[in-house]
Amino acid sequence: MWRELLPVGRSATTGGYRRHAWTGADAECRAWFREQAEARGLAYETDRNGNQWAWLDGSAGDAGAAGDAVVTGSHLDSVPDGGAFDGPLGVVSAFAALDELHGRGVRPARPLAVVNFADEEGARFGLACVGSRLASGQLTAEQARELRDDDGVSLPRAMERAGHDPDAIGPDPERLARIGAFVELHIEQGRDLAVRDAPAGTPAGGHAVGVASAIWPHGRWRFDFHGEANHAGTTRLEDRRDPMLTYANTVLAARKKARLAGALATFGKVAVEPNGVNAIASLVRGWLDSRAPDEETLAAVVAEIERSAAERGARDGVRVDVTRESATPVVEFAHGLRDRIAARLGGAPVLPTGAGHDAGILSAEIPTAMLFVRNPTGVSHSPAESAEEDDCVAGVRALADVLEDLACP
Amino acid sequence: MWRELLPVGRSATTGGYRRHAWTGADAECRAWFREQAEARGLAYETDRNGNQWAWLDGSAGDAGAAGDAVVTGSHLDSVPDGGAFDGPLGVVSAFAALDELHGRGVRPARPLAVVNFADEEGARFGLACVGSRLASGQLTAEQARELRDDDGVSLPRAMERAGHDPDAIGPDPERLARIGAFVELHIEQGRDLAVRDAPAGTPAGGHAVGVASAIWPHGRWRFDFHGEANHAGTTRLEDRRDPMLTYANTVLAARKKARLAGALATFGKVAVEPNGVNAIASLVRGWLDSRAPDEETLAAVVAEIERSAAERGARDGVRVDVTRESATPVVEFAHGLRDRIAARLGGAPVLPTGAGHDAGILSAEIPTAMLFVRNPTGVSHSPAESAEEDDCVAGVRALADVLEDLACP
Repeated sequence: MWRELLPVGRSATTGGYRRHAWTGADAECRAWFREQAEARGLAYETDRNGNQWAWLDGSAGDAGAAGDAVVTGSHLDSVPDGGAFDGPLGVVSAFAALDELHGRGVRPARPLAVVNFADEEGARFGLACVGSRLASGQLTAEQARELRDDDGVSLPRAMERAGHDPDAIGPDPERLARIGAFVELHIEQGRDLAVRDAPAGTPAGGHAVGVASAIWPHGRWRFDFHGEANHAGTTRLEDRRDPMLTYANTVLAARKKARLAGALATFGKVAVEPNGVNAIASLVRGWLDSRAPDEETLAAVVAEIERSAAERGARDGVRVDVTRESATPVVEFAHGLRDRIAARLGGAPVLPTGAGHDAGILSAEIPTAMLFVRNPTGVSHSPAESAEEDDCVAGVRALADVLEDLACP
Repeated sequence: MWRELLPVGRSATTGGYRRHAWTGADAECRAWFREQAEARGLAYETDRNGNQWAWLDGSAGDAGAAGDAVVTGSHLDSVPDGGAFDGPLGVVSAFAALDELHGRGVRPARPLAVVNFADEEGARFGLACVGSRLASGQLTAEQARELRDDDGVSLPRAMERAGHDPDAIGPDPERLARIGAFVELHIEQGRDLAVRDAPAGTPAGGHAVGVASAIWPHGRWRFDFHGEANHAGTTRLEDRRDPMLTYANTVLAARKKARLAGALATFGKVAVEPNGVNAIASLVRGWLDSRAPDEETLAAVVAEIERSAAERGARDGVRVDVTRESATPVVEFAHGLRDRIAARLGGAPVLPTGAGHDAGILSAEIPTAMLFVRNPTGVSHSPAESAEEDDCVAGVRALADVLEDLACP
């Protein structure tokens, strides 16, 4: 099952994945999902927002069910040059856990489904978790129709090209109302499980599987540094208004402010105009990704970075405009569900994460939980992302245990 | 004449020009050149490297002439979002100066031609002055065939698409041997003429036209900062190898080292991989353009920038590779020609420049000189580049005076 998915959207040069939403590679992943569902006799459907569902025992038809369905899954799209596990591990483990339950002879009393949420990473249109945001109403259809990729292609146009009707996108409260619990399994994006409770000097310590407590609040801010294009070979230094200097100073300031506050701040995406070797830039755009344990800290860190950029900009003759492109508040996963799962897994560690997930979006609407599988290097969003096979198997067993507990009360 | 050229390749949003070599906009400029030549009854030809020539009185046929031809002109291509004057002013003024000589009833004793050198800015293939470098043998045909644009299109392929036979490119010593003097008129890329000899507080001081003394040595270096892609939301700051930090520090260091040495250093072009908002970069490429009054200073400044990058890279866990992509030694224009021109123009000021030109390339082979026309703001390589109409007219008259002096001995 895993093997069929591995080559899809993989770069021959970097080994990284480029499975951006509604592209050809994404379509291959989605076709794979449907095949997996049909091979197991699951009822397959695509919802109005392009999320894929596979229901056990025809339970999809239970439209009037009283909110007791148990759903598991994750996403199949990737960041640019992403790893093999972020997303797909949760979908593959979901199907494998159903197989495990079948092998155990378990027959769930409640409806049970596997889901693949569309466009989780936001790599193409700049906004993460579009599929779950649309379903939960946290993103309106009007807002979604404004999203464009770097080539100017709108989200509706991209959906249409991929064969999905974009006119139907929008909130899906009836579908969400049927779900009593959503559990997303994901590779850990950090080394907490790998190092926790590990005796000093023993690399093999830690835990194979953990349970999520919360997702740090985070957001994306676009910093536009407006200078003046000029000739790099003739303009005296004192006559320049070079936005690259202001940008560079802001990158270093962001790191420092984040470090002092115990937060994270990253500039990972840049666009320069005119971007010529012998031209002083007229415009540098840098995107700040920042996260912190709580919302007050996050707001304070970003405010300090903005202040630093404005101060340096004044020295450089550069105007700085800051636009908040997205903001996700802190997510506390449902405590009852979290404690029940941790207990079922024999006291698995409970840990926070800085990464956003569809489970975080949906937690505003329905009880959600997450399982993390150990990541020995902590590397994520990179071709070097990895997990041990034994840990993946342990993840599937843990997910099966949780589903059995939730679906067979 | 000027009016027909103005709209070609101009962006409706920025007002800047994108006349990159061998594109559609470039083809329109080249068609304009041919029309101007033919409208004046000049003998038009394109040489093996795509440079365009227009010879007065059929003097093109004088293949055996004893190196006494007088040539003037410049280039019609532009940097990304360039101004209207850099390049075209020299070509337009060349045709206008011929008209002026005609009006004066001057009949040159020596062959006289206008030239448009191909691909002067290097905006598309990353190397400046390709047309004159090929003609003078400073760039071999083999090297030129390796040049590629950002879309991977090779220079020969681009030439072919534009209708020029790329098989013929290469040195053109016979053509250059016919030329006794090349004079390039160009808008000044700086404010030296505007402020020189201007009484304090009088904005209208300075000189309309000047003569070039030398071109500063300069070069382009590509800095590759190799880090490790990772998740921006989950990777602890101390676990990161973020090349954006090293790049940012190097940008600021370059400015400081240049300032201390009286040199210029600019990072105006950047490419980032994977360039995702929530991904720590794996690779940041930054291009350094640096220039200085002499070659020792230039070498010392670049060595200091490299050292600074390596030191910071060691702290960030980032490997820094530096590649010199081009190097142009100092150019001293022919002193005899320079002094003769300055004297003919009634003691016009003589000034150096930091910008490379075809005249600089050709000075290694034949006597060359440059005239500069006042630039009130000093802005260049930008839509805001400007010159007063009176100064442009003064430039045409000065060029006509020089051509009359050189071609009617």
